[in-house]
Amino acid sequence: MLSKPNWVLVTGGAGYIGSHTVVELIENGYKCVVVDNLCNSSYESIARLQVLTKTEIPFFQVDLTDEEGVSKIFQQYPIDSVIHFAGLKAVGESTSIPLKYYHNNIVGTLVLLETMRKFGTKKLVFSSSATVYGDATRFSDMIPIPEECPTQPTNPYGKTKLAIEEILTDLHASEPEKWKFAVLRYFNPIGAHPSGLIGEDPLGIPNNLLPYMAQVAVKRREKLFIFGNDYDSRDGTPIRDYIHVVDLARGHIASLKYLDQIGGGQGICRAWNLGSGTGSTVIEVYKAFCLACGIELPFEVVGRRTGDVLNLTAKPDRATKELQWKTEMCVADACKDLWNWTTGNPFGYQIMGVVDTFFNVPGDYGSRLITVGRGSGFEASFTNVGATLVDLNVNGKSVVIGLANEAEYLDESNPYLGTTIGRYANRIYDGSFTLEGTKVQLALNEKNATLHSSLQSFHKQRFLGPLVVNLNKNEYTVKYILVDKGTQFPGDVVVSVTYGINIKLQTLTVEYEGHLTKGPATVMNLTNHSYFNLNMFQNSSCDGTKFNILSDKVLEIDLNGKPTGKFVSPGNASKFILSPSGPHFDTCFVTDAEATIDTRTNDLKPVLTAQHPLSGLKLTILTTEPSFQFYNKGPGYIKHHGERFGFCCEPERFINAVNVNEWRDSVILKQGEVYGSRIVYKFETGAPELSS
Amino acid sequence: MLSKPNWVLVTGGAGYIGSHTVVELIENGYKCVVVDNLCNSSYESIARLQVLTKTEIPFFQVDLTDEEGVSKIFQQYPIDSVIHFAGLKAVGESTSIPLKYYHNNIVGTLVLLETMRKFGTKKLVFSSSATVYGDATRFSDMIPIPEECPTQPTNPYGKTKLAIEEILTDLHASEPEKWKFAVLRYFNPIGAHPSGLIGEDPLGIPNNLLPYMAQVAVKRREKLFIFGNDYDSRDGTPIRDYIHVVDLARGHIASLKYLDQIGGGQGICRAWNLGSGTGSTVIEVYKAFCLACGIELPFEVVGRRTGDVLNLTAKPDRATKELQWKTEMCVADACKDLWNWTTGNPFGYQIMGVVDTFFNVPGDYGSRLITVGRGSGFEASFTNVGATLVDLNVNGKSVVIGLANEAEYLDESNPYLGTTIGRYANRIYDGSFTLEGTKVQLALNEKNATLHSSLQSFHKQRFLGPLVVNLNKNEYTVKYILVDKGTQFPGDVVVSVTYGINIKLQTLTVEYEGHLTKGPATVMNLTNHSYFNLNMFQNSSCDGTKFNILSDKVLEIDLNGKPTGKFVSPGNASKFILSPSGPHFDTCFVTDAEATIDTRTNDLKPVLTAQHPLSGLKLTILTTEPSFQFYNKGPGYIKHHGERFGFCCEPERFINAVNVNEWRDSVILKQGEVYGSRIVYKFETGAPELSS
Repeated sequence: MLSKPNWVLVTGGAGYIGSHTVVELIENGYKCVVVDNLCNSSYESIARLQVLTKTEIPFFQVDLTDEEGVSKIFQQYPIDSVIHFAGLKAVGESTSIPLKYYHNNIVGTLVLLETMRKFGTKKLVFSSSATVYGDATRFSDMIPIPEECPTQPTNPYGKTKLAIEEILTDLHASEPEKWKFAVLRYFNPIGAHPSGLIGEDPLGIPNNLLPYMAQVAVKRREKLFIFGNDYDSRDGTPIRDYIHVVDLARGHIASLKYLDQIGGGQGICRAWNLGSGTGSTVIEVYKAFCLACGIELPFEVVGRRTGDVLNLTAKPDRATKELQWKTEMCVADACKDLWNWTTGNPFGYQIMGVVDTFFNVPGDYGSRLITVGRGSGFEASFTNVGATLVDLNVNGKSVVIGLANEAEYLDESNPYLGTTIGRYANRIYDGSFTLEGTKVQLALNEKNATLHSSLQSFHKQRFLGPLVVNLNKNEYTVKYILVDKGTQFPGDVVVSVTYGINIKLQTLTVEYEGHLTKGPATVMNLTNHSYFNLNMFQNSSCDGTKFNILSDKVLEIDLNGKPTGKFVSPGNASKFILSPSGPHFDTCFVTDAEATIDTRTNDLKPVLTAQHPLSGLKLTILTTEPSFQFYNKGPGYIKHHGERFGFCCEPERFINAVNVNEWRDSVILKQGEVYGSRIVYKFETGAPELSS
Repeated sequence: MLSKPNWVLVTGGAGYIGSHTVVELIENGYKCVVVDNLCNSSYESIARLQVLTKTEIPFFQVDLTDEEGVSKIFQQYPIDSVIHFAGLKAVGESTSIPLKYYHNNIVGTLVLLETMRKFGTKKLVFSSSATVYGDATRFSDMIPIPEECPTQPTNPYGKTKLAIEEILTDLHASEPEKWKFAVLRYFNPIGAHPSGLIGEDPLGIPNNLLPYMAQVAVKRREKLFIFGNDYDSRDGTPIRDYIHVVDLARGHIASLKYLDQIGGGQGICRAWNLGSGTGSTVIEVYKAFCLACGIELPFEVVGRRTGDVLNLTAKPDRATKELQWKTEMCVADACKDLWNWTTGNPFGYQIMGVVDTFFNVPGDYGSRLITVGRGSGFEASFTNVGATLVDLNVNGKSVVIGLANEAEYLDESNPYLGTTIGRYANRIYDGSFTLEGTKVQLALNEKNATLHSSLQSFHKQRFLGPLVVNLNKNEYTVKYILVDKGTQFPGDVVVSVTYGINIKLQTLTVEYEGHLTKGPATVMNLTNHSYFNLNMFQNSSCDGTKFNILSDKVLEIDLNGKPTGKFVSPGNASKFILSPSGPHFDTCFVTDAEATIDTRTNDLKPVLTAQHPLSGLKLTILTTEPSFQFYNKGPGYIKHHGERFGFCCEPERFINAVNVNEWRDSVILKQGEVYGSRIVYKFETGAPELSS
């Protein structure tokens, strides 16, 4: 039903209502570009939206008053319509710094509209507010408030909203067949996305009842203040029309579809209330939230607030009739979702111990460098390209080899440092296999094999996200998503790479999960390719590291270098100390775990320990995978480091499994199946031996 | 009464109401800086204001949306208050291009206010409009319209005015003790300044009744259209409140003084209607204007115009009571003044045959290059520095020596080319004289004399203006003003230099007038110092020119070079032909005209003719002055031209007259006296002789 180029520019899309609307847009088949100056929001919400929707969302940190910046977005994307949330929105602040409000909100809108005019974009949904009505109780017959209620905002914020409505009205009137404007007058949005991933994240002291109560519930604020209980209502507190933010977001989709369906040669500029039509008192909402969080929140009744009136409830009939939209959730639902969001994100998008910087140039949000556990003695840094582990710092010492920027990771000389290997790790001999009766030929990047996927390899792609979650004081997860469409591999897949960081246990967990989203089947074999060096801070080589490999089998390799499918004894390869004279490995050890498509049903088992005498640092690697490649030779791993600087342990499926009948099922991913695996890197610090 | 630094920034000061307000501001002792983007006005109005007020008015061609440009004005001048006229103002146009109106009017105001905030300027008078009330007849009791009438503008223009009122209200509320805002809601301004020098100059078809009628009266439009005569009024036509623009301008002074008198620590933001309180019908105004211009203007009654209502008359009581302001002129006065303006300026500030360019860099309005008579065969160009005649072009041939830019005129090597010589032309021996019993000593710039005033000489000062007037098809005047304060000369003077150009008679007249504005007396002797060459276009020298000097006396000069006070025979100096071997003159000829302080009472008499045989061009110089210096020798006149390239004839008072008792009265200017003189350069084209 959507017209073909269905790109929607969402201004202020990183904010509360904007982010929820992006979810609904994507679920309704729209493509979103977000522009936000982040003055009052966080890119974190966009990263989470990408993970939540498994969709790339182009983002521009641009202020709408920047004409050139806005033009560049329209040059890059064929914007068909705009949903315009961007604007300063604090009523109280607007009375203190009105010039800033007028400038930001009105100039931003004028630049946006002028840019739309230049690029021929004609549809806009505007985020207005019931504030434009002012005190509707000044009339005897305007509660619930219909759209016909005369406007008379009582603060600069509301006046900027009304001024923009007037601008839209006048612009439409100037070319009435061209412009399609939907003006949405919100009542009181509350709640959060049921996923708990996005929600309201007010800076400073919240102005609104629900976010304030949420902060009381998590003890960021002492108690709730109720401003007056002597109003003429059921319980003496004022009545407002609260609307679940997801319902509100869906109102935007309804209005956008309404604009979409208006035939050519016809324009419109029309306002719709988005409210439930049902009023709730402060006390009622208070009780609903206490019920949702299971806590009797402390409160104090204080005097009335200037400007507050008894009842501001919407008459939403116009939206119901014309947009076929109405609220579907109640205050209790919103309270539940808010509490879910609040408990998962007590400080909103800000997470203690997480530092977010740019790996490339500032503003290039597609390649952030996220560090978690900052200051804890167990810090891990990741970036989007390859969902790469850039650094792992244990007690102030880096234990993996990392690079300085994205370009170095993308350089041909990078030996897969810290990166996610996929769609198919290790070698497929002759680069070919049959799937569903069809022979698939991959590009070769070794003499007789395709190693680590050659083309379309995950380590050169930017993953979406990450979603960073602080599960508790000691645990974080960092989740990246990759949508990988079939080019040399058959079928489309969505893969998630979830790093778990436990700063107390000093463990880094990697969990892979893959789903086939298109096609009957594909192949999959995923692993992480970090190079460890337990003595990097003292020594430029990992010589001296003592290994204990907990495996009694390795794959047998034939004269052509292919696995025969048989297991043989590792001989004296189980315990060794690395030295310049060897040993040199590029060997696949067998773990005895069952080789299935989702090995997460297997127990995590230790498969290797390594310890360096000078640092005392001990690494234990655990996995659910049936085998792991151990690798410590080859040409200089990376231009910045010498040979033998690190070793690599890649838990994965058996080499060339797709071409070996007994192992084949463990790497063929079919519709409805889930690929899965898990690796844990655990660190312990023993007493260092004296340096010789 | 005024606070000491009383600089007022007038935005849009080149426009209709702005320019009239500048006059009143200056008359009330304020100093004005004007900023205007000239998108809908002309710098001509500022030049005329300078002549009218004899005051320098710094001007910036800056758009208010240009933050940097606006900041620079506040950096250069200690702006104490702002009167804010700048804005697009055509109601009809605003409905066609609303974005442009919102952007220009609102963003311009926001930038202005933010700049005021930065520089600590707290007072602003805002040019609002009765348009903010919308159709006040929607109420039963709001005619005449009081300030309490609810606002509801019906077009984008009116909405921008109201939005700005809201911005001012909110900004004041944010810091109520700081800001002082006067909002003036104009009714229907009409008329023009009684001087006839400034008035309304609408571009395109006038939207308003009076300018439209004026254009009908001068036959730029065929007839007046009256939109409906079936209203419920005295004669069936709608009633409006017309207010003389000078009354309106004075309302601004009243409100600014009101803001000025508000004590420290108190702010205000208040609206006042500026109207007469008396309504006139369209027919009544039509009749009044017909009476003023003495023409029965053709008109046609057509259908009502959308949006027009019966009656929009002001209730001006608030302004009368609080600002002590009321209108003092009636519709008949306005019609008379409008007709005066219209007949003098049938095409407003645009004058046929006048070209206005920049002599220095674009935007440097202090040094324009004005050319009159363009395309007529008799073109004269002037610039402000020295009120200099830069070029005089007769039948396509330049006959005076000019320079390429202002810097060359200011260069020491410039031998006074085409410039005004003053305050005292020619030599004062020993540079000294006594005046009112006191000896005055000037700086010497020759061995034993002060020549052409040395320091403080007029030719290095920028004159104000010019006022360019097209008297009739063949005649223009270009009038410059100089305000010259006493530094080395005693007393302040105001001098005007008025060039008259008659393209039919091929005459250039120069008239000097001087007034003493401070001090008991000063000395004055003014002349023009053009170098003529009647064959410049063929020959780089003026050799061959035949002269006939119509004088039988020259000043006797003693051995020290000083005039003895006696006249002697010119000998064979009356008729001669210039050649490389001579004659060489630097001689003062006597004309027999009476030597008084204002020689304009003398007849203009021819004193010299010159004709060049190769061009046939003949110059006759006439003057009212008692003597003239003839000069054709000396070092290369100017670096760009060789010696003997031009000759100079400077009608003036006798050399050193201030030190010669018999002549002294002709150069001493006392309070209440007027200095005056006149020179005419007349050209005729005879048949050229054959070149040898």
